[in-house]
Amino acid sequence: NHCIICGFGRVGSQIADDFTEEQKVFIVVDENEQNIQTCLQRGYLALQGDATRDDILREAGIEHARTVLVATDNDAHNISITLSARHLKRELFIVARANRDETKVKLKLAGANRVLSPYTISGHYMANLVYEPAMVELFEAIMQAETGDLVVEEVELAPTAKIIGQTMRDAQNTLLHQGVVLVALKRDGSILSTPTQRLVITRGDSVVVIGKLAQITAFCHKHMGAAQKQVFQEE
Amino acid sequence: NHCIICGFGRVGSQIADDFTEEQKVFIVVDENEQNIQTCLQRGYLALQGDATRDDILREAGIEHARTVLVATDNDAHNISITLSARHLKRELFIVARANRDETKVKLKLAGANRVLSPYTISGHYMANLVYEPAMVELFEAIMQAETGDLVVEEVELAPTAKIIGQTMRDAQNTLLHQGVVLVALKRDGSILSTPTQRLVITRGDSVVVIGKLAQITAFCHKHMGAAQKQVFQEE
Ligand SMILES: [Ca+2]
Ligand SMILES: [Ca+2]
Repeated sequence: NHCIICGFGRVGSQIADDFTEEQKVFIVVDENEQNIQTCLQRGYLALQGDATRDDILREAGIEHARTVLVATDNDAHNISITLSARHLKRELFIVARANRDETKVKLKLAGANRVLSPYTISGHYMANLVYEPAMVELFEAIMQAETGDLVVEEVELAPTAKIIGQTMRDAQNTLLHQGVVLVALKRDGSILSTPTQRLVITRGDSVVVIGKLAQITAFCHKHMGAAQKQVFQEE
Repeated sequence: NHCIICGFGRVGSQIADDFTEEQKVFIVVDENEQNIQTCLQRGYLALQGDATRDDILREAGIEHARTVLVATDNDAHNISITLSARHLKRELFIVARANRDETKVKLKLAGANRVLSPYTISGHYMANLVYEPAMVELFEAIMQAETGDLVVEEVELAPTAKIIGQTMRDAQNTLLHQGVVLVALKRDGSILSTPTQRLVITRGDSVVVIGKLAQITAFCHKHMGAAQKQVFQEE
């Protein structure tokens, strides 16, 4: 259940730092000997080799991995690594870095679950610093685990969940009394757009909630689908 | 009260797109003619020229600007633009992009209020997709204004605010009944680290709160410092 980080450049090394702080088990794969030395000095598990190759990914334990993060600064490599990883294991969460816009589609086709561009994210981030600075503060705080016992959770609603059939507005009011803030509604995998206040929550929807750990846990046990509950208990 | 975007590369163009969606007034400054053509095609206000030069920044209206976003892919340019902008106007919010780690300190010294690296942010983002995916969803939703009337606000507490003297835990419980979630506490400009539950809120602190617009507005009017109230009303 470990993570494999492919590429130990500026992005990959930040991922490794964050994983270390969150006590996640991971291994770094990189071709560059200097990068591998840096990993070992920091006490990271590391493997020198070309992550586009099946044997290297196998050596990194891809059969038992849950997640692969493809983070090199070379888009062609990233596409190739993504293809190899997906080919070797169907049940794998792959997050891949796109340095150019046209790479995003290719990474998706190659099998990445999530694709992100350092430049797109930074643009959003810099723009939001201007017109939504508190949101950026919140994001940074939660990214750095500095918010006490406050958590954000995405919950797939059970067919029996009481908020099904309610409007977003009504559900938000109901849940606030239970100490839970309903921040977004997901349907068919994507967040529904504004205006969502009159939108009716239906079977199969997921909700994104934020609140204190105890309240969110209570909410999950009450409203969460059975399949997800099992996942929740496994963790 | 407009924004000046220096550099229309992958980061700068994303900022311009976001500003357009949020109906913010901005002008792009870039040396490259092709980039300026793209701006004009998209209906953006744009000025061809070297943003490290005082006369170009003046032509972009820096005297009346509130914010400058320094977003080129060249660190030396970014330092030089930041220096020029700060030199021309003391009261200015400057957000600058650092492509290499060692540039961060230099941009701060040059006068940037906020410095960010595309690679650091992307690393955080990819890591959080693994262990805090709901937070990333929330951030994306709020960045794209898809959360109905939910807002995040940073509030400088008035000396008379009732939650002063309370622990974070007690304040969170009090505020939840008013439909406001207290997510973080700031003191001397930085977010306080965990465990914050027993921490006592003191005079001069700021809080970051999330909730529905009506509740947050009520909270602000009750707890906000006088100086900030004035700013709030000006906007
Ligand atoms: Ca965290
Ligand atoms: Ca927004």
